[in-house]
Amino acid sequence: MAGLAPYAGNAHVVGLTGSPGVGKSTSTAALVSALREQGKRVGVLAVDPSSPFSGGALLGDRVRMQDHALDRSVYIRSMASRGHLGGLSWATPQALRVLDAAGCDVILVETVGVGQSEVEIAAMADTTIVLLAPGMGDGIQAAKAGILEIGDLFVINKSDRDGADQVRRELRGMIGLTDRAEGAWRPEIVKTVASKGEGIDEVVAAIDRHREHLVASGELDTRRLRRARDEIEAIAVTALREQWRGVHENAALDQFAAEVVAGDSDPYAAADLLLESLDALPD
Amino acid sequence: MAGLAPYAGNAHVVGLTGSPGVGKSTSTAALVSALREQGKRVGVLAVDPSSPFSGGALLGDRVRMQDHALDRSVYIRSMASRGHLGGLSWATPQALRVLDAAGCDVILVETVGVGQSEVEIAAMADTTIVLLAPGMGDGIQAAKAGILEIGDLFVINKSDRDGADQVRRELRGMIGLTDRAEGAWRPEIVKTVASKGEGIDEVVAAIDRHREHLVASGELDTRRLRRARDEIEAIAVTALREQWRGVHENAALDQFAAEVVAGDSDPYAAADLLLESLDALPD
Repeated sequence: MAGLAPYAGNAHVVGLTGSPGVGKSTSTAALVSALREQGKRVGVLAVDPSSPFSGGALLGDRVRMQDHALDRSVYIRSMASRGHLGGLSWATPQALRVLDAAGCDVILVETVGVGQSEVEIAAMADTTIVLLAPGMGDGIQAAKAGILEIGDLFVINKSDRDGADQVRRELRGMIGLTDRAEGAWRPEIVKTVASKGEGIDEVVAAIDRHREHLVASGELDTRRLRRARDEIEAIAVTALREQWRGVHENAALDQFAAEVVAGDSDPYAAADLLLESLDALPD
Repeated sequence: MAGLAPYAGNAHVVGLTGSPGVGKSTSTAALVSALREQGKRVGVLAVDPSSPFSGGALLGDRVRMQDHALDRSVYIRSMASRGHLGGLSWATPQALRVLDAAGCDVILVETVGVGQSEVEIAAMADTTIVLLAPGMGDGIQAAKAGILEIGDLFVINKSDRDGADQVRRELRGMIGLTDRAEGAWRPEIVKTVASKGEGIDEVVAAIDRHREHLVASGELDTRRLRRARDEIEAIAVTALREQWRGVHENAALDQFAAEVVAGDSDPYAAADLLLESLDALPD
């Protein structure tokens, strides 16, 4: 990681999220094609947050990426987020840093929009794309899952189907109702038919406009600083956990836990004692 | 929390999880009735992990609990888990401790089985019930989401519908395939029709058998120790985060983040420096 540091910081990270069936993999493959036509080097991370116990990678429709399998300027990797400690937020930043330092111009991070994963992805991305499709009740789902607040760009895929304009109207209405600071980015809506490549160039153009806005407004720096802070914190916290749980350390945490279970202490008092024990941190 | 400590530790915590539509609220209400008939005091926490941005409580079908609304020995509370920092794992243990100390014999924690929430609930519960229903493709979903590994008890609700025996056969097969240590609990399967109260007494009996197993095997103590450790850690980590991000503290974390963004440092080196700065912890 230390060796990569000087080479990282150039890639634009694009998060793609949406419910199952909206066409995430097809859209990702179409975006890769469009970006490659512009001569860009592209990284793709497909993150599956639904499999807490499996260590394996689970990109079922990786086959759709076959067009790009032999292209040396495209790197594709699927990851499962193991366990609930950290989840997505633990392994993904490291993978992003490697792809960034390796010279990717754009990194697409694709994840299923379930639970909190899309919020985590949004925290890591420069541009977050929320994919919707007509006839899936996505308008209501959008409001419910809070994805309205994370989307920089809403893509209505399968827009040759009935109901695409209805979804767009609902989205427009909801975006219009959202409070937004003066000069803040107003989320764009693009209609696509990813399987035919329709609208994909507009998506790429909207990503470019969003990036220009981020640079001009200084928000790109703000987001990257926040992301670095989060990552440093996560690493520090993990190191502390390992120390607290380490077999060669004293069994302070076990002892505190026993006192809490016995009713002789409460978790807050125990946490204070645990933090005091940090004075004994080895250098 | 310090005042509650001596009174906590008696309640049996039962986690209930399952996909939308399997009948979680109806099952919870039926379990409350059965437990009340045994004279037990019951707490119910309905946790909604799907709403990261809303601070409100979202138990849509709270109306199903109306039978118990005037029963002073039943306490019902719905909670949204806010944001992704901590999620379920932050507020729920505190609510459990309050209900425990208040004299609840059993606390039912109901949550939708999406993403990682059911894993977090299982970590907090003494007994975890996974609810399934015929005709929802749950057999396959069970394997995919890893819920097989968290369920102490599988309840097939709506078992008057076609396919209940099919679900049971699939579950039996999968449970049979799971590696299990000598003397470990073998998950039980119970069929219910919660809306008619059918099979609910068997669920209560299975919970009792599981509790007896936990006590006899010493696993109840093991689980509670682990839970106390997790809770102490979470509180300590949150206190550290507040300190790292606190406005009155030095801006060390911001400076480290800026160095990482500039490519002058990497997150691992920065995390080491952040941990070293802990020597300056105020008492």
